[in-house]
Amino acid sequence: MSCAPACKCLTWLDATPAFAAGADTPRAYLERCLAAIAADEPRVRAWVCLDEAGAKAAAEESSARWKSGRQRSPLDGMPIGIKDLIETRDLPTQMGCKAYEGHHPRRDSAMVQALRAAGVIILGKTVTTELGHSEPGPTTNPWDAARTPGGSSSGSAAAVAAGMVPAAIGTQVGGSIIRPASFCGNFALKPSQGGIHRGERQHSSQSTAGVHANSLADMWQVAIEIASRAGGDPGALGLMGPMALPEAVRPQRLAVMETEGWALLDAAARGVFEAQVEALRARGVEVLRRADHPWLEAFERAIAGAKAVTNVIVGFESRPALLELERNSPAGLSARALARLRVSERLTPTDYRAALAEREAMRAALARLAPLVDALVAPASPGPAPEWDPRAPDAESNPCPTGDVACNAATSALGCPAVSLPLMAVGGLPFGLQVVGFRDMDARAVAVARWVAQGAGPGVTTPGVARGPNTA
Amino acid sequence: MSCAPACKCLTWLDATPAFAAGADTPRAYLERCLAAIAADEPRVRAWVCLDEAGAKAAAEESSARWKSGRQRSPLDGMPIGIKDLIETRDLPTQMGCKAYEGHHPRRDSAMVQALRAAGVIILGKTVTTELGHSEPGPTTNPWDAARTPGGSSSGSAAAVAAGMVPAAIGTQVGGSIIRPASFCGNFALKPSQGGIHRGERQHSSQSTAGVHANSLADMWQVAIEIASRAGGDPGALGLMGPMALPEAVRPQRLAVMETEGWALLDAAARGVFEAQVEALRARGVEVLRRADHPWLEAFERAIAGAKAVTNVIVGFESRPALLELERNSPAGLSARALARLRVSERLTPTDYRAALAEREAMRAALARLAPLVDALVAPASPGPAPEWDPRAPDAESNPCPTGDVACNAATSALGCPAVSLPLMAVGGLPFGLQVVGFRDMDARAVAVARWVAQGAGPGVTTPGVARGPNTA
Repeated sequence: MSCAPACKCLTWLDATPAFAAGADTPRAYLERCLAAIAADEPRVRAWVCLDEAGAKAAAEESSARWKSGRQRSPLDGMPIGIKDLIETRDLPTQMGCKAYEGHHPRRDSAMVQALRAAGVIILGKTVTTELGHSEPGPTTNPWDAARTPGGSSSGSAAAVAAGMVPAAIGTQVGGSIIRPASFCGNFALKPSQGGIHRGERQHSSQSTAGVHANSLADMWQVAIEIASRAGGDPGALGLMGPMALPEAVRPQRLAVMETEGWALLDAAARGVFEAQVEALRARGVEVLRRADHPWLEAFERAIAGAKAVTNVIVGFESRPALLELERNSPAGLSARALARLRVSERLTPTDYRAALAEREAMRAALARLAPLVDALVAPASPGPAPEWDPRAPDAESNPCPTGDVACNAATSALGCPAVSLPLMAVGGLPFGLQVVGFRDMDARAVAVARWVAQGAGPGVTTPGVARGPNTA
Repeated sequence: MSCAPACKCLTWLDATPAFAAGADTPRAYLERCLAAIAADEPRVRAWVCLDEAGAKAAAEESSARWKSGRQRSPLDGMPIGIKDLIETRDLPTQMGCKAYEGHHPRRDSAMVQALRAAGVIILGKTVTTELGHSEPGPTTNPWDAARTPGGSSSGSAAAVAAGMVPAAIGTQVGGSIIRPASFCGNFALKPSQGGIHRGERQHSSQSTAGVHANSLADMWQVAIEIASRAGGDPGALGLMGPMALPEAVRPQRLAVMETEGWALLDAAARGVFEAQVEALRARGVEVLRRADHPWLEAFERAIAGAKAVTNVIVGFESRPALLELERNSPAGLSARALARLRVSERLTPTDYRAALAEREAMRAALARLAPLVDALVAPASPGPAPEWDPRAPDAESNPCPTGDVACNAATSALGCPAVSLPLMAVGGLPFGLQVVGFRDMDARAVAVARWVAQGAGPGVTTPGVARGPNTA
């Protein structure tokens, strides 16, 4: 894969000093993004649609603002990808779903409204699995087109990894931000539940909007620029923290979080993860394992059913709207979606309440750990991206075509912040390290993640992983 | 006002034994509803649109089910009104707002889906104030057309009070279920926050769907039939309790809740309320006043800012969608709505978080009272319905054209159940008594309300109030 040198670090905040100095412009930056898209989109297929003309016009305006020192925020002029579940005024919102073909509500979701107010340029909509559930879209993994980019934020993950945009918006209800970040080698933040305003997408009590980026600084900046304008979901505090990446904070004590995913790690994946744990110990951090403290063991037991709990909660909460969708558009849902819907029809409010109670118990078990450790670390997925064939996504032979949520269902249900760091590799493929914090303490989790990432250095990361596939 | 004798008790569960016995049918019941509508709708203007043909066909089917003993629920065949904020497959959802004229999403909201599954007939959409906020619709109070029916659930309240339907669905974010119930002399339940699934309307952390009816039994049955199928809002427990009106429970101790509304009661309103308190004492219930216990005083102080808190929360939460609406339809919002929007634009996430924190403190102060009293009683509004002129709704001269939320903002912000009982009257106009319970303990609040209402008897109620305006 070839790439213009400027792509080598397609990050945003590294570029803005040159905008301020007049040596570069957002318009030229956009052109580099469009060049990356022209080069790799036929293989990667990250985008549902692009607004090239609108983006160019917006980049001109942004360039003028930088020139006169009147930029709206540090992100003024940043091209971004928006997951196609989220409404945007200028582009359709088709949700990876036949039933929504041509759907174009002509309004901005709250987070898109906030991004525009910060001067961010909505370059296009990125591929999502069908309605954010399991039926995959066409996107391939930029590291290996025979592998999944992960889902449901497939296109956002791949577009960032391929250096097409410095950042993209994703959403997670089970593992849809952190898993694709792990598979694609991105930095990503899944904030505390409700940390970033989901706008019209309030039908799930467990879905969260978050950010993929090529650096921690860009990742945080996107998140905080949204939250400082739109706030979080109704009733939520919204992401809190400084208006630039928090300073690194050295943790005193961390704990390894195993989750249901632990059993799925093969020897190679476990080996690179244990090397990370040893590296943290070598840097003077105490790292607890589940056997080291009864609260940790209790926590692991509490989250052991996270996948099943998530399935009940998501199934029950998505049922009313899916039934209407099926009624209005009988051929508009995939066989996989219909099979899920039929299962969810058997759920009662009593089943749902039982899942909510189990989720509450999980959250209490995590909160109990706050006096014990600064944060938790975990594999962000059960390993690197598995192979798949996007042309034959058969529900029975492959129930998890975009990978298994086993390492992510717990943090989704816990409603706590999770940061994926591209610090590990197996067989030349990226594999994320997850830093997990306490609810509404996102800035603290990011500060610890920054410390972890800073210290990992090039000795720990595989060359290529640290800088993205487009520099291989 | 004349009325067929059958209207005298236009309640549902009183009629169903005759359906089972073959002496009456849902089809005939519907005809009585349509007769009431034909007689009074020109004056009351409760309905935005009706589906007479669809309702007749559905009533035929229901009649057949009752005949063969295969009714879907005790509510099979009940004609109901749905507030025009809530989506219904067959009828438009225009939200009392010019910008939504002709809006017809062709899908059922979760609660409508549940009602249909119970056999309930969606007779039509009832008038709401603009988007559920303060700009009034055309509905008049069935007791006196020169007075407001209350808002925002104006049409639902008036349709029930005028004997047009046995029940109707409303929503409350400030005082939109309980205040109109007070003004129109209905029984009404505003459940605990999230008790009844709001479907697509999840943009507010403080709005609740509820029920107006002509009897407590009908009121509860509608609520529990929805919740037993659709559950509550995502993340909420949903209304819990028996599948028929809870047995009356005699409270040991009640407390008077004053709220900001207390200062607005005139001597007549205060007099009839104090008579209710005395009647409760005469029945052996201890009734505490705020001066009687420091926790009660602390509670009153905690809720003293409920109107302002509600304004900040509602303003911030409704802002993103209103800005898009204004952008797409500059002439589609009333001057009143635009004035509110301009105020809400000045709110920051910090303001919003401060309001959330105050709301949390209010909720903690209520929870503290649970060991002290079984429930609270309060006026459901600052008095009977005020006069208004629907043709001159001027924002400056009349900031509260559908009445003041002062008695309701607290229970809205508290997220606790409130039941309005038509037990009082001033000047021949109804005036509700509110029974307020503890969060998620709705069945208990209704059980206490039932006991309060049973004992009040005809001696306490003004003739006419107990049976509705159409029997005057």
